[in-house]
Amino acid sequence: MSRILELGRCTLLSCIKSRTLSKQTYNITLVSCIGRYLSVSQSKNMKLVQFSYINKPQEIRTGYVEGNGVVDVAKVDSSLPNTLLAILRNGLFDKVRQVKMKNPVPEPMSTVKLEAPITNQDKVLCIGLNYKDHCAEQNLKPPEVPMIFSKFASAVVGPCDLVKLRTEVTKKVDWEVELVVVIGKEASNVKAEEALDYVLGYTVGQDISARDWQKERNGGQFLLGKSMDSFCPIGPWIVTSDEIGDAQTLDIKCSVNGVQKQSSNTCQLVHKIPDVIARLSSVMTLLPGDILLTGTPGGVGMYRNPPEYLQPGDVITSEIQKIGTLEVKVEKYVKN
Amino acid sequence: MSRILELGRCTLLSCIKSRTLSKQTYNITLVSCIGRYLSVSQSKNMKLVQFSYINKPQEIRTGYVEGNGVVDVAKVDSSLPNTLLAILRNGLFDKVRQVKMKNPVPEPMSTVKLEAPITNQDKVLCIGLNYKDHCAEQNLKPPEVPMIFSKFASAVVGPCDLVKLRTEVTKKVDWEVELVVVIGKEASNVKAEEALDYVLGYTVGQDISARDWQKERNGGQFLLGKSMDSFCPIGPWIVTSDEIGDAQTLDIKCSVNGVQKQSSNTCQLVHKIPDVIARLSSVMTLLPGDILLTGTPGGVGMYRNPPEYLQPGDVITSEIQKIGTLEVKVEKYVKN
Repeated sequence: MSRILELGRCTLLSCIKSRTLSKQTYNITLVSCIGRYLSVSQSKNMKLVQFSYINKPQEIRTGYVEGNGVVDVAKVDSSLPNTLLAILRNGLFDKVRQVKMKNPVPEPMSTVKLEAPITNQDKVLCIGLNYKDHCAEQNLKPPEVPMIFSKFASAVVGPCDLVKLRTEVTKKVDWEVELVVVIGKEASNVKAEEALDYVLGYTVGQDISARDWQKERNGGQFLLGKSMDSFCPIGPWIVTSDEIGDAQTLDIKCSVNGVQKQSSNTCQLVHKIPDVIARLSSVMTLLPGDILLTGTPGGVGMYRNPPEYLQPGDVITSEIQKIGTLEVKVEKYVKN
Repeated sequence: MSRILELGRCTLLSCIKSRTLSKQTYNITLVSCIGRYLSVSQSKNMKLVQFSYINKPQEIRTGYVEGNGVVDVAKVDSSLPNTLLAILRNGLFDKVRQVKMKNPVPEPMSTVKLEAPITNQDKVLCIGLNYKDHCAEQNLKPPEVPMIFSKFASAVVGPCDLVKLRTEVTKKVDWEVELVVVIGKEASNVKAEEALDYVLGYTVGQDISARDWQKERNGGQFLLGKSMDSFCPIGPWIVTSDEIGDAQTLDIKCSVNGVQKQSSNTCQLVHKIPDVIARLSSVMTLLPGDILLTGTPGGVGMYRNPPEYLQPGDVITSEIQKIGTLEVKVEKYVKN
């Protein structure tokens, strides 16, 4: 395990705890971390992940959490492609469920690193001003129609990755915990009543935002402030929609360095998920793997008094009921 | 050839002429079309294309125009991947040049359909208000910093594809001819002086824009009005930057149904290409295959008196000096 730490890479376990822990402390932490991350997975339900093997870091694999490990679905069924995107685009998700029914032996968690559960998607859509309490903290009336902006897929990172601040060009990087909808199949011109049929599941996300670029330095278009490298951590897994039930009754929280900053419930959503999917699909075709960040509740840094922004060394903990906890560390961006 | 037309698909030739031509007329047209599209290619220079074989429409191939055909580079060098994106991401572009040096026999143009010359890229970046004459027609001062917005890669279509209008939800779809920069290699924190080293080449593009969604129906964020399916035609090919020289001295024109609507020169660019690349790369890593639409000159439909918008049946012809002509037809969107 210490070899892994020395490599500067992280397993599911190391990613959520400081890498400077002593070996003894680490082993103790290990058990408690497994417990925390896996508590939900011990039910009959499926937590979809992407991961890489520690000894093969370049290759993304798809699996699900099982006991103290992950099942590598393409290892069980070689007709399955390696990435979740390819599985969805080829309409093969039922085969993943079939793999689970065979109860295959999982890979030990110590041999893998969790990656973002879906990557390289066509669209990372985000809704602005979509929580009543977030509108209230800005003294704004909730918008009559959802305001949609985007990030680039290259900004997506996983639960063991870092949020990297380009401190030379931005001093105002903020947190925004969000419920993330993952589209499972192509959707064009779908009605709100049928919209949830197109949802694969949900994960936890952060719409990290450089407020100076979002608000001041790009003519009012949010894009540059929202889509810096690593500004879209998601994970640790996707919980399929059948397990979630009503996604608009979930507690949602964010803390920075252990201090709670955001605490709300998805019942505060101004524009409901089915309505937003219907609206989006009326103007563009949603593709399998596309994700929709549904907006953030009140408590972001920029509306605090005085305003607070993320700094290298910070740890952001994002938690959504029935899904899990995503913990990411913030560091200074250094060009490779 | 008539079989191809019956299939409802299009070759390089049929895409630029109505499919209702009689066989005789078509054969005459064929020759003149080849002449128009290939006039530039008869020089020593390389026009990079992506294409599919008529009898294998699902598979994208990469090549370059040679005489009256296209060379399929992966057929000559089997170590090359099929798509230009994969060639660039794997750093294999020099091998494409090596293929050309072997003077291989091209595939006949009648056996292929030209596709968008680069697809599935991470970023389709666009600059708003970036021609002095386009600012003038809106009585706006040119912005002090470039205003960057985006489209989704799924909106990219090629020279033989159609621009499809979702007429139920938008009545204000406009043309915008643009010079398109294609990024050839990863760029982060590059200086303006070195920015052009990261440019593979240039193509012609249209930043098709639903003005009602861009301006009125999405809280000021351009995204939805700019990224409807098929709203980013590009092509017919990428001319490598070494052949273009100074990209900011090129005549740029757009006509609709043969009537000229836009006519300017890229010397009118407010924010120059190297400066924009430097600025973008200071906040995010540009990836091989990313494209940058550099803004449109004056003469768009919405600032005409009375305003003019695209209708099903229209033909948009976009032309840039030293690159070529991109002609696309407009049709009503119908869900598959």
